[in-house]
Amino acid sequence: MDKKYIPELEKIVGPENVITSFEERLTYSYDSTRLEYLPDVAVKVRDAQQISSIIKLANDYNIPVTPRGAATGLSGGCLAVKGGISLVMVEMNKVLDINPIDLLITVEAGIVTEKVSKAVEHLKLFYPPDPGSMKSSTIGGNIAENAGGLRGLKYGVTKDYINSIEVVLPTGEIVNMGSNTVKAVTGYNLVDLMCGSEGTLGIITKATLGLLPVPADKVSILAFFKDMTDAAKTVRDIVAEGVITATLEIVDKVTINAIEDFLKIGLDRTVGAMLLIEVDGQKGAVEIEADIVMKVCSANNALLVRRAKNDKERDELWAARRAALSSLSRIKPSTILEDATVQRSKMVELINAVNEIAKKYNMLIGTFGHAGDGNLHPTILTDLRIPEEAEKTEKVIEEIFNATIALGGTLSGEHGIGITKARYLKLELSKPVYDLMKKIKNSFDPDNILNPGKMECNWDF
Amino acid sequence: MDKKYIPELEKIVGPENVITSFEERLTYSYDSTRLEYLPDVAVKVRDAQQISSIIKLANDYNIPVTPRGAATGLSGGCLAVKGGISLVMVEMNKVLDINPIDLLITVEAGIVTEKVSKAVEHLKLFYPPDPGSMKSSTIGGNIAENAGGLRGLKYGVTKDYINSIEVVLPTGEIVNMGSNTVKAVTGYNLVDLMCGSEGTLGIITKATLGLLPVPADKVSILAFFKDMTDAAKTVRDIVAEGVITATLEIVDKVTINAIEDFLKIGLDRTVGAMLLIEVDGQKGAVEIEADIVMKVCSANNALLVRRAKNDKERDELWAARRAALSSLSRIKPSTILEDATVQRSKMVELINAVNEIAKKYNMLIGTFGHAGDGNLHPTILTDLRIPEEAEKTEKVIEEIFNATIALGGTLSGEHGIGITKARYLKLELSKPVYDLMKKIKNSFDPDNILNPGKMECNWDF
Repeated sequence: MDKKYIPELEKIVGPENVITSFEERLTYSYDSTRLEYLPDVAVKVRDAQQISSIIKLANDYNIPVTPRGAATGLSGGCLAVKGGISLVMVEMNKVLDINPIDLLITVEAGIVTEKVSKAVEHLKLFYPPDPGSMKSSTIGGNIAENAGGLRGLKYGVTKDYINSIEVVLPTGEIVNMGSNTVKAVTGYNLVDLMCGSEGTLGIITKATLGLLPVPADKVSILAFFKDMTDAAKTVRDIVAEGVITATLEIVDKVTINAIEDFLKIGLDRTVGAMLLIEVDGQKGAVEIEADIVMKVCSANNALLVRRAKNDKERDELWAARRAALSSLSRIKPSTILEDATVQRSKMVELINAVNEIAKKYNMLIGTFGHAGDGNLHPTILTDLRIPEEAEKTEKVIEEIFNATIALGGTLSGEHGIGITKARYLKLELSKPVYDLMKKIKNSFDPDNILNPGKMECNWDF
Repeated sequence: MDKKYIPELEKIVGPENVITSFEERLTYSYDSTRLEYLPDVAVKVRDAQQISSIIKLANDYNIPVTPRGAATGLSGGCLAVKGGISLVMVEMNKVLDINPIDLLITVEAGIVTEKVSKAVEHLKLFYPPDPGSMKSSTIGGNIAENAGGLRGLKYGVTKDYINSIEVVLPTGEIVNMGSNTVKAVTGYNLVDLMCGSEGTLGIITKATLGLLPVPADKVSILAFFKDMTDAAKTVRDIVAEGVITATLEIVDKVTINAIEDFLKIGLDRTVGAMLLIEVDGQKGAVEIEADIVMKVCSANNALLVRRAKNDKERDELWAARRAALSSLSRIKPSTILEDATVQRSKMVELINAVNEIAKKYNMLIGTFGHAGDGNLHPTILTDLRIPEEAEKTEKVIEEIFNATIALGGTLSGEHGIGITKARYLKLELSKPVYDLMKKIKNSFDPDNILNPGKMECNWDF
């Protein structure tokens, strides 16, 4: 294709930051969905001014621009599906300001999520959102996808910690949105609109994030149950007792066995479900809440309830949970991690539906996830290289989504729509709501140059 | 004016619900700003279908429609400033569903805020947002303004509890937005965009709200300080200790004296500031947190720290706080309650700035507010019937806003922009952001029939 805009890009960021060779562009062609779309050019940027200039150029030449963080996304958000420019944000990774009194940190968007908490560790503060990919994902990507994490029930998700952002609009203006006060209602809530807009409404360049004091104490608890029903009831009862746990993770039998195959840590292969629970807060307060949690587990016929005696035991428990996906992915060549989310009260029904679907298609599915949020990750173990398997997998995914929506749930609790779930949008949204979204997109980006092809479906198809 | 659409309105809602007499329309002409705009007609509605029909009619005839809840707003949100139809929502006030397992309640938008908590009291649940007007304000108005309240720091504001809403769009479609799952990222976050849009983007007809378990225990603490600086430092240090209090209210000397004049409850008139603090949570946990709060107060030179011994003492303390505005309003014929909000770390500077402005204009200003949020309510005591006083008041307001913005604050922490603050928008927003807002408005409401004239300013003026 004609790339006469390349010299202009080189003028903006320097030739060393404009990547045009096929081999190098390949490294910007995929994300964690393992789908591949080759950008025409990848451009490493350093500041909002450069991005603004690139965006103006892109509008002039009508070239798509797709911002890219660490590419850990699970719905294709950073893939340049229409070609054009892959905007590489990872070198904009500085901490710009720390304000311990107001519990705020200001960072560039390309900073790795985990480094935000590391930057304020010495002040006994932390940044609560903890997506599974936090060791490599970037804040910009987290905001674009409104990333969740294990601590969602107590601490909320990314959008709950975004005070203000600097954004390059699809028309090139550099603007600030939001306020660094605790409360602010001046004008429309554009920050929360940007958060979760999957890079289609603007390119986030800076963010001022909320922090919290590190809890003085925490206790981790492991409980085994004969089945997922007892485990799910326990989840409901813990919340009903007024205990909002920091984490409340559920793991099914398939996944328990996969973890045990992998880690050999002595998990009981015969149990039907496992809960991993952490409570945190003031010293003393945590003891009270831990006691309530343990009582509720016992009252729901837990086969075993164990409290981590020390940090080592605690770390082992959470290492087991974190190994869930990698353990499952050892079983088959392809691992499809889904993101079905229902109300807590519907979790048992969703689990049963997933098991029925697995049986119907003779497909192995391991399920684990954030039980407090009703956010499950049914993980389909398959081999997409075999056409019949790929076809079957597609049907399984569609049936899981249908079951989720029939239970009043959502297509995505935390991974986003992107391209992988776009075709299912009409299961959840009505046509007028979808049309409103497109009108909003058009009012931000009249030339449709920013991350085109995402959250888009052919409604009449 | 020509009102040939009146018979059509009568067909939609019945003649008894179409109010055309001057005397009756007068009762729909004001809100808590005490500004007055007479609607051409007031229409009492019962369901979304009626509203949809009215909206379609309004588009056909190009008549403005302004939704109206309990008219407790402080920025003019429900005033029919361009005439047309005042849409009276208060009879849509039913509780439609209570879901104690998922901690959700579904209500019609015209329900009074306090009744939401009352409806779930027997389940030991509550709806956390508690705007000062909660005994009369409606949920629809709360959502439209993203109302705050005393419990903001720990429990957040209205938008943090809106799971899903039914909305009549300005083009007449009845749509659902959001999800009743804890987490959901399918499509743009339209719920949070609607929340705080001040009735300009759609008419909220139903809402599914989040609930929380009533805390098992609570402790209220009163502390006096020699000045606002010590009180503000205490606020900062409490948060730094990791204690997130349910409420953390500050009251200045002018207001303390006004309360004492009114209630005669023995408040010390010589002190410079008062903090009213409540911690809540699990039994035991609350004791630990109360101890920390009391220690921090003492460490910051509190003149007196007292813990409410029983419910009666507790109720007296909070009655004193709730009497702040009414006590101040006894002093002068006009009371202008402002809503200036800065970061906690800037609160002392804002208080000093307000005092300087009061001195410069020889104007009495009492200040109280939600110190944990940095959300202050400087209350100007004046007599707007006297032209020179009115003029001076206008200058005082403008200087307070200028000082707030200079300190990195926001025009409004929780009351909204409406008409009273619209002219100051450009102090806080940039032109491209204001333009984006207008484009969003236009994409929802191409004929500009819904609540026109709000959040609008002449940018070049």
